[in-house]
Amino acid sequence: MYVSDPAVVCLSMAPEPLHDIAHLGSVELLTPRPDRSLWYFRDVLGMTVAHEAGDSAYLRGYGDYAVSTLKLTAARTAGVGCIAWRATSPEALERRARAIEAAELGIGWTNGDFGRGRGYRFHDPDGHTMEIYYEEQKYRAPAELRSSLKNQPQKYAGRGVGVRRSDHLALLASDVAANRRFAAGLLGFQLREQVMFDQGKTELGSWMSPNAVHHQLAYVRDVKGGHGRLHHFSLWVDNREDVLRAADILAENGIFIEAGPAKHNNSQGFYLYSYEPGGNRVEIYSGSYLVMAPDWEPVTWDERERGSGTYWGGALPESFIQYGTPDIAAGDTPLDPPKLPVFF
Amino acid sequence: MYVSDPAVVCLSMAPEPLHDIAHLGSVELLTPRPDRSLWYFRDVLGMTVAHEAGDSAYLRGYGDYAVSTLKLTAARTAGVGCIAWRATSPEALERRARAIEAAELGIGWTNGDFGRGRGYRFHDPDGHTMEIYYEEQKYRAPAELRSSLKNQPQKYAGRGVGVRRSDHLALLASDVAANRRFAAGLLGFQLREQVMFDQGKTELGSWMSPNAVHHQLAYVRDVKGGHGRLHHFSLWVDNREDVLRAADILAENGIFIEAGPAKHNNSQGFYLYSYEPGGNRVEIYSGSYLVMAPDWEPVTWDERERGSGTYWGGALPESFIQYGTPDIAAGDTPLDPPKLPVFF
Amino acid sequence: MYVSDPAVVCLSMAPEPLHDIAHLGSVELLTPRPDRSLWYFRDVLGMTVAHEAGDSAYLRGYGDYAVSTLKLTAARTAGVGCIAWRATSPEALERRARAIEAAELGIGWTNGDFGRGRGYRFHDPDGHTMEIYYEEQKYRAPAELRSSLKNQPQKYAGRGVGVRRSDHLALLASDVAANRRFAAGLLGFQLREQVMFDQGKTELGSWMSPNAVHHQLAYVRDVKGGHGRLHHFSLWVDNREDVLRAADILAENGIFIEAGPAKHNNSQGFYLYSYEPGGNRVEIYSGSYLVMAPDWEPVTWDERERGSGTYWGGALPESFIQYGTPDIAAGDTPLDPPKLPVFF
Amino acid sequence: MYVSDPAVVCLSMAPEPLHDIAHLGSVELLTPRPDRSLWYFRDVLGMTVAHEAGDSAYLRGYGDYAVSTLKLTAARTAGVGCIAWRATSPEALERRARAIEAAELGIGWTNGDFGRGRGYRFHDPDGHTMEIYYEEQKYRAPAELRSSLKNQPQKYAGRGVGVRRSDHLALLASDVAANRRFAAGLLGFQLREQVMFDQGKTELGSWMSPNAVHHQLAYVRDVKGGHGRLHHFSLWVDNREDVLRAADILAENGIFIEAGPAKHNNSQGFYLYSYEPGGNRVEIYSGSYLVMAPDWEPVTWDERERGSGTYWGGALPESFIQYGTPDIAAGDTPLDPPKLPVFF
Repeated sequence: MYVSDPAVVCLSMAPEPLHDIAHLGSVELLTPRPDRSLWYFRDVLGMTVAHEAGDSAYLRGYGDYAVSTLKLTAARTAGVGCIAWRATSPEALERRARAIEAAELGIGWTNGDFGRGRGYRFHDPDGHTMEIYYEEQKYRAPAELRSSLKNQPQKYAGRGVGVRRSDHLALLASDVAANRRFAAGLLGFQLREQVMFDQGKTELGSWMSPNAVHHQLAYVRDVKGGHGRLHHFSLWVDNREDVLRAADILAENGIFIEAGPAKHNNSQGFYLYSYEPGGNRVEIYSGSYLVMAPDWEPVTWDERERGSGTYWGGALPESFIQYGTPDIAAGDTPLDPPKLPVFF
Repeated sequence: MYVSDPAVVCLSMAPEPLHDIAHLGSVELLTPRPDRSLWYFRDVLGMTVAHEAGDSAYLRGYGDYAVSTLKLTAARTAGVGCIAWRATSPEALERRARAIEAAELGIGWTNGDFGRGRGYRFHDPDGHTMEIYYEEQKYRAPAELRSSLKNQPQKYAGRGVGVRRSDHLALLASDVAANRRFAAGLLGFQLREQVMFDQGKTELGSWMSPNAVHHQLAYVRDVKGGHGRLHHFSLWVDNREDVLRAADILAENGIFIEAGPAKHNNSQGFYLYSYEPGGNRVEIYSGSYLVMAPDWEPVTWDERERGSGTYWGGALPESFIQYGTPDIAAGDTPLDPPKLPVFF
Repeated sequence: MYVSDPAVVCLSMAPEPLHDIAHLGSVELLTPRPDRSLWYFRDVLGMTVAHEAGDSAYLRGYGDYAVSTLKLTAARTAGVGCIAWRATSPEALERRARAIEAAELGIGWTNGDFGRGRGYRFHDPDGHTMEIYYEEQKYRAPAELRSSLKNQPQKYAGRGVGVRRSDHLALLASDVAANRRFAAGLLGFQLREQVMFDQGKTELGSWMSPNAVHHQLAYVRDVKGGHGRLHHFSLWVDNREDVLRAADILAENGIFIEAGPAKHNNSQGFYLYSYEPGGNRVEIYSGSYLVMAPDWEPVTWDERERGSGTYWGGALPESFIQYGTPDIAAGDTPLDPPKLPVFF
Repeated sequence: MYVSDPAVVCLSMAPEPLHDIAHLGSVELLTPRPDRSLWYFRDVLGMTVAHEAGDSAYLRGYGDYAVSTLKLTAARTAGVGCIAWRATSPEALERRARAIEAAELGIGWTNGDFGRGRGYRFHDPDGHTMEIYYEEQKYRAPAELRSSLKNQPQKYAGRGVGVRRSDHLALLASDVAANRRFAAGLLGFQLREQVMFDQGKTELGSWMSPNAVHHQLAYVRDVKGGHGRLHHFSLWVDNREDVLRAADILAENGIFIEAGPAKHNNSQGFYLYSYEPGGNRVEIYSGSYLVMAPDWEPVTWDERERGSGTYWGGALPESFIQYGTPDIAAGDTPLDPPKLPVFF
């Protein structure tokens, strides 16, 4: 997770941890059923619509201090659109843009989107679209949504699940290792955990983060050989009890629960996976643990240690491995495979 | 919270956030009743003794990956000893040492302590003793304390409260502003929240952090004009329910509960304050919120907004303002006031 | 599960525990601000309006299987109206009516109210109006409120606090002992706990129940010498975490929180007291413990043992002792004092 | 609270609900690994040994007010021994004894066991051994186990899971209907829920109770045609979070978790099933709901409604249907089939 950044090396011969990305900023989900997806995120999960434009709605959790962390866009098939990362400074943004461009993964500069300024857009090696930006619009709640807590951006309304904030996302990738190296080397993400089968030869998943949150990005093997697909997007609640309550609410609203509430062994995440009406897998999430060590030793799980992927027994359903969006098995055309740079 | 670090400036004319301190490493508590204090932390809070040497015991929570995060040392009076911060790299350690030395707050290099390598020792402006180090010993659990979770450093034993890890500490300071400027300027901590009375003229407290944890260091006004004193040391549990359960356990063990369980307005922390038998205030803590924004706008509370300091009503007891360790009112001699550098 | 055992009835002349009252059925709250009170119970606490008639709204928790457990009636002052108890059988209803009539506390038979059949109405010695009934209308949820759980009367909507069901009520009484003897002797309630000051001479409160719930009726001393007043009405949630979440919701909605969330020592109840906009004290409640013993030994607390009435420290505010509805101090005329029968 | 009302007994010839059994008193579990079973209940679940005699240990939860609710007895195979029910009065005990004797299910009077007085012993139709008693020894904690709560029989020690009290047990029966009729007719238990397949022709399970607890006795079909076998014994904790914490503790102690934590649809119970080292299935349990209605309408689930038996999805493992103790499949000899009375 150390990177040779020429600008830095002139001062310090030993590479230091890169610290140019601050956090996951915004995730765009594509949905063929925008009205029902909006109902799911707004009425069932309790998010707030901060803005609407064209085919998109911009949502937020009551604890997100950015104006929006989830963009919902009508599309022919489900899946993930642009994944935006916030830089730690304007200079960090420039540095990352140059490094990614040099790696031939760049798309180019954009004028930003609702809630954020100009950004540099690129592909990860698997073809997911990403963007780095620095300028961000803070949320200013209208009077009726103002919290009685001055340090809380928005009233906790007590509607539905009441997710606090966006936490992370997991992407499917045909070559997990290549994408993991990209995220470590070019984004500076620290590797937190890995699942490695066949005596380390098959990398099934890697969990990474630019900050103390256990993982803000996971790459998981796309067993169908697709490109640019989503495994899940994850929203945070503060207590495990909130996840149990979420399960009650999902069940009452006829939402399909794929797995959980239960506890993963890797990440220690307390999870609840459902499919939003558009088809994307969404996780309600709590627990896990923070990592603050600059020299964190990644925890690697082999076949035996990983077991079922759950801590208390039971198993994740086969769909958890097989299903992603867009759902290739359903006959949809996958996103165009990206032109992978030779670097990876 | 931006600092002119000459080494950096040659490359980037605009200052970038300093990122040289990774996290709070270890806190030393002094106790005139070492046996009872050990009983409190080990048997009531459920911590583990990792090492004993001389008049000190080195403790840890089951989720701490460093070998020890709390050092308990027999002393004539209660209070806080050395507060150790971990650097993000060996270079960062050197940079901080040079900068602190230049500010005339330095004491000098030490050969480290159990669990950590050489460090640079110094005073904060109020006279608390601090140290920065980089080399850290990870915990390797003996067989009987090994967790069934590969990513958990130690078995969750289910003994007493079962605190997960060290979270933060709050120090009393006669001049909060001077110490806040020190922590921002020389340690690179981001200011998260402040309590400012008298139209901003009286700074009652400042909450700061080097990472996404809401605060790892708070300076709170020493109303008695002392120096080098402790307000509280805080240990984390994952859920609010764990804090309630902790209150039951403290009550069953005859531990004095000063306040809580309840929710602060500033920090949103869900708190439970008790006095360990040596006299130091210890907090069992959950909730609060993470901050990942590089440009976080500090939240400032005035008299009216701060109110009682609790969110749901009720009041913190007067002792919460008046009492710290060592307890000056009890006639103990305070730590020698430090020679404050002219810089602050 | 009904057994005809006529041979038994003449074999035992020794008194056995009376089992004629099954549970608290319905409580009527009076409010001078009916619209705001309705908003509080429906939108903030998440109850459902099952029926409206005249100046009254009939509400229910999602887990109440009776059609309504709370009647909200517009009135000049806050307070409690009719308190209805369900009998265990039609015969039990007749028996209780005769016994109460014989004790000269009876008012007479009524034709019932929404959701229940004919009942026998009476005063307790302090003058509160009560009623015993047997016939009860079960709730049949309309399609949009039907739960995905067949054994749950109504969908858990996840709106506001989401109280599950009515639990108990506490009445102020100028002579606690007389009312306690009445509830034990004529209603067959088991005494669970008592607060007795002055070496047993002053009975400050008695907690009683006709079933395994710790208490469904409490008599607490009316320190102002009033009659027929209410201390609080209590609604149940399943977990302590639900009470904490309720506090967040009350705070966000500008509801005055008088005390809690915290834990009583007597009853072990985990409480949160607020005033609904009409002025009545309402408790959100969990925890406590069930009593199934037929020979339960009442737990009696003296001044020292009772302490502040809270388990973890802190104190209940003076208003908790002084305030009831109607609020005599506010100059309202109290309910007419009842003609107390000589029996008590 | 006792009332002498002899005039009443001859007035009503219509059958009223029987109220002769107060609650489940004590369950005896048989174990071929008594030392390990004792470790499980004492060190992992946190129960206390109140007494030891011969091959038996008598245990209790911190909230049980009877001196013991679980008897652990060394035996050749796992299974359930004597199941003791407490009567509501001495007269109720006599009435039940006569009625059971008349039904030809009686074994005879015993001199009691540790913690309880003389009792009438009998078989249920499936051959489980049961007993009814009235005299019960209350727990008086020794000084070191005394609680700081006067109404709590024993200190909450914070050791392991910390189960509060015994809640219920589920028995396997070859003919569920016969045993259900027995429990309703002779013990007076109210039927709460049923699973009925084949359009009501196959009764898979019936959940019943003598008090407000949802069920204290369940009969579940013994798919292997055995007799006198146990499905599970269940221990209560107050919050769902306590069940999650229990799962962490079981996992850390290498205890096999068969299912959960999750939520049943029938009973709404929040369950966690593990096998204690002797082989018996033990449930850590919270949630569910109380029933206080004298005319409760049993909730009946057919194949489609019952589904997997869980509320949030997922499935109970096949072992949950197949496995009971003693484990017939393992080649052990089942308990002698009882001589079933012609009445059933």
